Amino acid sequence: MNFLLTNDDGIYARGLSALYGELSQDAECLIVAPEAEQSAVGHAITLTRPLMVRRARKNGAFWGYAVSGTPADCVKVGIRELSQEPVDLVVSGINLGANVGINVIYSGTVSAATEGAILGVPAIAVSLDTRRDADFAFAARFARRMARFMLRENPLKNVPLNVNIPAVPEEEIKGVAVVKQGRARLMEIFERRTDPRDNIYYWLAGEPQLSEGEEEDTDMSRLQEGYITITPIYYDLTHYGALEKLRMSIGELKS
Amino acid sequence: MNFLLTNDDGIYARGLSALYGELSQDAECLIVAPEAEQSAVGHAITLTRPLMVRRARKNGAFWGYAVSGTPADCVKVGIRELSQEPVDLVVSGINLGANVGINVIYSGTVSAATEGAILGVPAIAVSLDTRRDADFAFAARFARRMARFMLRENPLKNVPLNVNIPAVPEEEIKGVAVVKQGRARLMEIFERRTDPRDNIYYWLAGEPQLSEGEEEDTDMSRLQEGYITITPIYYDLTHYGALEKLRMSIGELKS
Repeated sequence: MNFLLTNDDGIYARGLSALYGELSQDAECLIVAPEAEQSAVGHAITLTRPLMVRRARKNGAFWGYAVSGTPADCVKVGIRELSQEPVDLVVSGINLGANVGINVIYSGTVSAATEGAILGVPAIAVSLDTRRDADFAFAARFARRMARFMLRENPLKNVPLNVNIPAVPEEEIKGVAVVKQGRARLMEIFERRTDPRDNIYYWLAGEPQLSEGEEEDTDMSRLQEGYITITPIYYDLTHYGALEKLRMSIGELKS
Repeated sequence: MNFLLTNDDGIYARGLSALYGELSQDAECLIVAPEAEQSAVGHAITLTRPLMVRRARKNGAFWGYAVSGTPADCVKVGIRELSQEPVDLVVSGINLGANVGINVIYSGTVSAATEGAILGVPAIAVSLDTRRDADFAFAARFARRMARFMLRENPLKNVPLNVNIPAVPEEEIKGVAVVKQGRARLMEIFERRTDPRDNIYYWLAGEPQLSEGEEEDTDMSRLQEGYITITPIYYDLTHYGALEKLRMSIGELKS
């Protein structure tokens, strides 16, 4: 089997290294990852600049391809150009920080998995719910179980899965929950600052915080309760519930 | 009324100017747009760098705020910081080129409208189906009708609308169709090149081309037939159709 590994924290991130350590026991793993951190790039792709591709080394050996682009770029160029073999699975992560609720749409980690699915390759995104002192060991082992599941049991291979793992000791994990994306949204605050030349600039403060407005049985609520969450992702952005109502109301637009 | 105008082609793009010319007849219009072209940035937001905000001028007068970020950044900082009044409507565009099919997920134009909706503001994205020699006059007039529709008739104010307009003379437009997002996907080709120092790089060639795999009655098919298309957008990425099947198949993951 041939896996393509990527992330949005950059090619030397510890989460990617942990992922490689586990998955390379089951498959040939090609790393194609951003040269630099790409958090919150959403589903960006690079059209107006070239993608520089560098052979990155680690401990004196080839580690992977470092790409001057986004996670979605890495998956595109990895599948189309850099992998010598057809790719059986794309695995994105392990992200430092959960990707749940509305902020899934800002997630480079998840968009890499989505891009794999768009190109016809089964794909999972794996994130660990902590921002610091991360122990990726269990998350990486679970990613390996997820990879086997994707290729053997899963009836929905064309649906990318967004996996979030609590940052607690393994024995405290309550189970695995298949859940929808929550609706809790970002509570952002801009810091207004003055640069050395007296120009005003703004900086989105800290990490986005999830706010109220959350329902039950969502990715965020179950993750906070201690479950591993799995959310199937759809890249059709149509609001089907709105189609009919909108059709009935557009009379004046037709004139 | 107070409108926030943005785009992904940059603050001096002709499509934005055309939009302003029409909408400013009905409302106070504040322009907050990217300093530079931001095509295909998807729903990226800027966390790791500050957002520089410049008062941009045109013909000797204040034109709007130029932001060193993405369309979603512009909407966030525009609504939260730059607008002196509550924003009644976000209008993104007029984009040079259609935003239909799978490539909606790469669209900065559409993500700006989605960001407005996430922040609780009605929002539309408007795109014109041509890459060159664009005549934005009719599209801008239609955007004005859409803006009025959003604020008066539309029962779904919290649902952002993705509007695509054929680049044909007004009398050849066949009507207005409310349609789902199509599934035709990008057919990308990477050009492999060598830089002046013999390094390999890749460049995603030309504009993404929509390929086969298209159904009937979608944004792409109706637009090609000569209809103005309107697609309601949902930013819940859950694949609801996959939830149950996945729940039944994850037995081995729970052990």
